[in-house]
Amino acid sequence: MTDKGRPATGAEHPICIAVDWGTTRFRAHLVAEDGRLIDSIASDDGMSSVTDGGFEAVLSRMCAVWFGRFPGIPVLMAGMVGSRNGWREVPYVPCPAGLSEIAAGLVSFDIAGGSRIHIVPGLTTDDAAADVMRGEETQILGVGVGDTVVILPGTHSKWAIVRAGRVETFRTFMTGEFYSLLTHHSVLRLLAEPATDDLAARAASRLGVEAAAGDGGLLNLAFHARTGVLAGRLKPQDVEPYLSGLLIGEEIAKAKRLVPPDLPLVLVASGVIANHYREAIEAMGGIVNTVDPERTFVDGLLRIAHHNKETADVRAR
Amino acid sequence: MTDKGRPATGAEHPICIAVDWGTTRFRAHLVAEDGRLIDSIASDDGMSSVTDGGFEAVLSRMCAVWFGRFPGIPVLMAGMVGSRNGWREVPYVPCPAGLSEIAAGLVSFDIAGGSRIHIVPGLTTDDAAADVMRGEETQILGVGVGDTVVILPGTHSKWAIVRAGRVETFRTFMTGEFYSLLTHHSVLRLLAEPATDDLAARAASRLGVEAAAGDGGLLNLAFHARTGVLAGRLKPQDVEPYLSGLLIGEEIAKAKRLVPPDLPLVLVASGVIANHYREAIEAMGGIVNTVDPERTFVDGLLRIAHHNKETADVRAR
Repeated sequence: MTDKGRPATGAEHPICIAVDWGTTRFRAHLVAEDGRLIDSIASDDGMSSVTDGGFEAVLSRMCAVWFGRFPGIPVLMAGMVGSRNGWREVPYVPCPAGLSEIAAGLVSFDIAGGSRIHIVPGLTTDDAAADVMRGEETQILGVGVGDTVVILPGTHSKWAIVRAGRVETFRTFMTGEFYSLLTHHSVLRLLAEPATDDLAARAASRLGVEAAAGDGGLLNLAFHARTGVLAGRLKPQDVEPYLSGLLIGEEIAKAKRLVPPDLPLVLVASGVIANHYREAIEAMGGIVNTVDPERTFVDGLLRIAHHNKETADVRAR
Repeated sequence: MTDKGRPATGAEHPICIAVDWGTTRFRAHLVAEDGRLIDSIASDDGMSSVTDGGFEAVLSRMCAVWFGRFPGIPVLMAGMVGSRNGWREVPYVPCPAGLSEIAAGLVSFDIAGGSRIHIVPGLTTDDAAADVMRGEETQILGVGVGDTVVILPGTHSKWAIVRAGRVETFRTFMTGEFYSLLTHHSVLRLLAEPATDDLAARAASRLGVEAAAGDGGLLNLAFHARTGVLAGRLKPQDVEPYLSGLLIGEEIAKAKRLVPPDLPLVLVASGVIANHYREAIEAMGGIVNTVDPERTFVDGLLRIAHHNKETADVRAR
């Protein structure tokens, strides 16, 4: 756990706390009137580690310094905190949905100390797949109002078709989870060693992306991470980047068939993950703009807050 | 562990012990001159549970009754027992390979008590995939000498292209392992309950097979096992059979693109697994003949033994 909850400098005027509360992580930002992040904290107090409904206690503990300095400051939240096993269940909003529908689905309630909590609803697709997201809808709203395909990599990556800022539909890909399963629990881990050479890892990742374009499918191509080492064509350090490239390549190849080819791609990611996706998309002949996940998250929350009468507390500060 | 190592009836004349020694299971049969199985034993003494090279001790313990009654009886083996971490490493034979090449690759040695051990080599494909098998080559030889595609379902399923009884090439699909990963370690297990109604399970399995034919790929379609339950379209009991159908359907769809369409399919499987594969292949418009895995294994070993001068001990009995 990290807790940098130091007091904000005097010049800033915070209007709210923005919380991204997912299954495994808790992230909060103290947000200035102009949208800048005055301060940020993060910990492993994800939804799955909160026991006996102790959400208010975790929030109060994590943000104690901010609550002490700015009593009654409103709190905007999105993520799995709004799921059935979260703090309050916030019903999914069916697609197509934009700012109006999402803001209208906000659930608000008060906690001790005078602060009001606002939790953003997730989205569901109104089709046979009945796909779901919680948290990513906020980032998509933060991307803006254009016509785009928004790509949100993660444990469960999302590809959303957005027109005039409204989410028409989206699809989930279990890319991050499959990577974790294969590298932690499968036979493929037995010949793997941690990647140390960045250049070699990028080359192995490219091999995986190229493999994904071929025949055989994941069930066959993943096994090459084993046979490649046995045959001396891959090093033990190549196993993990090869699998990463293979899974990302598979996600992109399959997702591109599901989205309109004329829409520009926007990638909501940073760091290594952003590099992996951008390189894979470019290797497959695409181009993509990358935007910062934290920034889009807070921008999305603020847009929702400015659209909903329940969040007058945010605007009034 | 089961050990039914009871003495054979007097009327039988055993010529060898046939051992299928894989990663997780040990299976042995006392084989009569005409190929019938006089007796069989099985346990969880797979290669991965044998420590400090104690293979001879495990074999002697498991087959003590047979060795006592038929001193010096030869032992034919195939499977991971011939791998680098097995009893003796038996080098892979490159494809294309048939009875001659495989029999020529046999590794033979003596153990205490006068028995001679013969371990069958595995196969490797002579291409970039450098795919590998150990144990299945013996079953393929046991299927016969025709032109076929031999399908061997399992943790790592194999599809082998066989012409005139020779294995031209083959491909591995991690179908069984992916099923185990998803049902034991992934988020999909959280909403799953054990399937109890056989008819309902078959219907859910068919849904999975049909889903595999659609867009989205495994990374997306596996997630439907979760969203389907959330949306009330699947019951918690449907999750595992849906995933089974999805993975088998994916394996068959991808494998059929890699094999010649004019060759008949032969399925080496029994019980529930055989039913699942046969139903999926038929649902996808194919037809398949099913043969017994134990029978083809022993038949394959006997064909190898009759082809190799090192195994004169088997023929001489």
